[in-house]
Amino acid sequence: MTTATDTAYDRLLAISREAGLLGSIDGLLGWDQETTMPPGGAVHRAKQLALIARLSHERLASAEVGDLLAACEDAMDVSADTVEAANLRAIRHDHDRAVRLPATLVEEIAATASTAQHEWAEARAASDFDRFRPWLEKTVDLCRRKAECYGWASDGEPWDALAEDYEPGCTAAGVAEVFGPLRDRLRTLLDEIADADTRPSGRLDEIELPEAAQMAFSREIAEAIGFDFSRGRLDRSTHPFCGGSHCDDVRMTTRFHPAMVTDALSSTMHESGHGMYEQGLPYEHIGTPCGHSVSLGIHESQSRMWENQVGRSASFWRWAAPKLAAHFGDAVAGIDAELAYQSANRVVPGFIRVEADEATYNMHVMIRFELERALMTGDLPVADLPTAWNEKYREYLGVEVPDDRRGCLQDIHWSMGALGYFPTYTLGNLYCAQFFESACDAIPGLVDGFAEGRFQPLLDWLRENIHRHGRRHSPAQLCERVTGRPLSADPLMRHLEAKFRPLHGI
Amino acid sequence: MTTATDTAYDRLLAISREAGLLGSIDGLLGWDQETTMPPGGAVHRAKQLALIARLSHERLASAEVGDLLAACEDAMDVSADTVEAANLRAIRHDHDRAVRLPATLVEEIAATASTAQHEWAEARAASDFDRFRPWLEKTVDLCRRKAECYGWASDGEPWDALAEDYEPGCTAAGVAEVFGPLRDRLRTLLDEIADADTRPSGRLDEIELPEAAQMAFSREIAEAIGFDFSRGRLDRSTHPFCGGSHCDDVRMTTRFHPAMVTDALSSTMHESGHGMYEQGLPYEHIGTPCGHSVSLGIHESQSRMWENQVGRSASFWRWAAPKLAAHFGDAVAGIDAELAYQSANRVVPGFIRVEADEATYNMHVMIRFELERALMTGDLPVADLPTAWNEKYREYLGVEVPDDRRGCLQDIHWSMGALGYFPTYTLGNLYCAQFFESACDAIPGLVDGFAEGRFQPLLDWLRENIHRHGRRHSPAQLCERVTGRPLSADPLMRHLEAKFRPLHGI
Repeated sequence: MTTATDTAYDRLLAISREAGLLGSIDGLLGWDQETTMPPGGAVHRAKQLALIARLSHERLASAEVGDLLAACEDAMDVSADTVEAANLRAIRHDHDRAVRLPATLVEEIAATASTAQHEWAEARAASDFDRFRPWLEKTVDLCRRKAECYGWASDGEPWDALAEDYEPGCTAAGVAEVFGPLRDRLRTLLDEIADADTRPSGRLDEIELPEAAQMAFSREIAEAIGFDFSRGRLDRSTHPFCGGSHCDDVRMTTRFHPAMVTDALSSTMHESGHGMYEQGLPYEHIGTPCGHSVSLGIHESQSRMWENQVGRSASFWRWAAPKLAAHFGDAVAGIDAELAYQSANRVVPGFIRVEADEATYNMHVMIRFELERALMTGDLPVADLPTAWNEKYREYLGVEVPDDRRGCLQDIHWSMGALGYFPTYTLGNLYCAQFFESACDAIPGLVDGFAEGRFQPLLDWLRENIHRHGRRHSPAQLCERVTGRPLSADPLMRHLEAKFRPLHGI
Repeated sequence: MTTATDTAYDRLLAISREAGLLGSIDGLLGWDQETTMPPGGAVHRAKQLALIARLSHERLASAEVGDLLAACEDAMDVSADTVEAANLRAIRHDHDRAVRLPATLVEEIAATASTAQHEWAEARAASDFDRFRPWLEKTVDLCRRKAECYGWASDGEPWDALAEDYEPGCTAAGVAEVFGPLRDRLRTLLDEIADADTRPSGRLDEIELPEAAQMAFSREIAEAIGFDFSRGRLDRSTHPFCGGSHCDDVRMTTRFHPAMVTDALSSTMHESGHGMYEQGLPYEHIGTPCGHSVSLGIHESQSRMWENQVGRSASFWRWAAPKLAAHFGDAVAGIDAELAYQSANRVVPGFIRVEADEATYNMHVMIRFELERALMTGDLPVADLPTAWNEKYREYLGVEVPDDRRGCLQDIHWSMGALGYFPTYTLGNLYCAQFFESACDAIPGLVDGFAEGRFQPLLDWLRENIHRHGRRHSPAQLCERVTGRPLSADPLMRHLEAKFRPLHGI
């Protein structure tokens, strides 16, 4: 490598770090907005966020970055398995996409999303799809224009161009190939469950428990599994999320219901999974691609692992159930590990995604994927969405959607223009199950250790195999490296069948 | 005004608003750092703040701003009493100062301040002035170089160039002219108090009260005097402050001691005064000079007015004392309005500025002003500071400073390079007393109204006469406009004498 290349690469990294720093400020502004900001601050906050987004985009899309990339690519083997090559590939990827999107379209998308979100919230409150319909039509149209700017492979489709923002390398055909067998096998399991005579008890979630005690319990669990509170926070918000600005400043939130303490706990463990991934990113590369998470799907694999593979396991509850009495006293008398485990694993097919159990959750996601794919090809006109939605819920989950508020208006994503996002939730579950099988192979007694509060071996394994690599590998590459196989529906189905058949006496 | 000028002016304002938006982000990052940030976030936060400061400075100091200013000044009467002319004068003022400071010096000052603050904290903890001495020497040297870049009037001195950052138009000679009579008359009052046989009771501040109840009490009072919680917050921090990012998002903090509820209350009312000033700035001009506060001195006049003229008045306590029982129950039995008023007004000469009472407070500030002025001229070598400090405390306040921790190492300001800052505290008290006399003249029954919870007339008067003008007038101009007279020590001394003589039976 020549000195000139060193200089070009260094300058490129400096620009990347500056864009990263701006992104980290965006992270704090967003967290504050959801947790702390007084209501009057909303208008000004939108202006702050828009400025940071513009400054970030200017850095990424600049002609200087294009020139620096060209200079580095001339002098280096960008396909090499090195940090430098991985950084170049990622910056090239992001630069090309940023350049392809005209500023006027970016602004139109942002302005439309802002109004569409407001109209969606009003429409949802009134369960009035017709109010939202023109905005969804406009959003789908803008998404098509965006996809055209980005482009897609000759054997691909417009949806692929959108999904690339969330899950690099992801295509509709590739997703369908994994989702198809998952749906069929899941349908079989759900049928078995529906026909079973045995049902897990929900007793723990029928007890009202004070919020302060639920928070203290949540904090203890988050700390025990490995979230570092000297480098992060846990607060309360309506919709739990994990944000913040740096591996040393991770902000996560959870939620509480008077009853349903297992919901607070699973939210906390889910966000802790995201948070521990962020805390585990390599410090020295923060602000560059190799210091960034891989994708939304891989991020979700981390959250789901702590939520489901750990937090909904019988072994975990043998350790956690005895702690219930210390936090909640006589109110939880008689709740032992077995009852708590059952409460955390009740299966009830419903029509609300964010309230879904582990067994039915992926059906919700697959329905959305199939519908948004059809919206993008034009096979499904927006006006027909409610009917198509309700039919799929009948077919896949056997439930009757009572109204659009609890049907196709329930999620915010499409109003934000985030088509292509939903599958990352199920991809996360799939990656998670496949990673976890590898972790179990690598660490003898891993699951049994949960019963004694031994979570560090799993966290160490995740740090070593996933976190410390940042965005060095693509999702597909990472999956092959960690598990030796391409992504498949088998590990997730093995996990679900092994858990839910015994719980239902099957 | 020609169209070309309109365009130049509009472009100038757009740049000003962008710099303002960056400043508002700085405000949120700073607030979060003091209230919410996990300890691990400190290093990254410093990088975020440095980036925002650089982006802000780039906008203010750019050649484009110089050209736009020149174009506008050619076409407009910049001495006119209009919003446009005031904006031009202020942007010219800030641009010229930003340009005069070389980037290398700015960086050296920032880097030195960062280390010096750390060394100061360590030195203070160990009460070891020698540890801090080399850093203060370096800081004073950098301040001299900074002053030389800025320049000062032929009849002025280097200190003036520094003070201009905090109090535009302020000079050491001008400050000395007002502080001289203030010091003499204050010395007389303090001697009278020292000789008096009567002492106000401190009974209310001897009662330990739970923090949660103190917070609820503080919030009730802040809301009652006019702080708008839909556009702001009150949290807890070690050192109370008011920050935030916009007139619609004002973040203030207060502090609590187990006993001393009047301290929590005066901190809250003080910060509420700052906060209501920010909330009262003209919305349409936010981000431009006419949407910004005038100076630190004027800002302090607002905080002191609610803290002292309102919150330490007998009339206020006739309204507030009956609320004590609702918040604190039997613990405050027997505390009536008179006892509470006395507790809020005990005079105890001490050596800690931030714990000083209303009567002695300004002595602390005047001592610092005299010392930093001498540090800047070179008449006082840094090595002689502790001795000079202790002598002045003996002379002005009659107290023996026990050690440097409680002496010349007690304040953070000089370690941050903020020489020229201290006088704004006493200028604030002076402006406050002079403004308040004008308010009393304009609003019959103003003070009596406090006893019935009528605070709105004072807030309306401040909105009308001070807040809504932003930075349109200089501090001196504003004082003349509002009170018809230049700043003088008389109103403050009249206020202090009228209060403290009767309280001490004089």
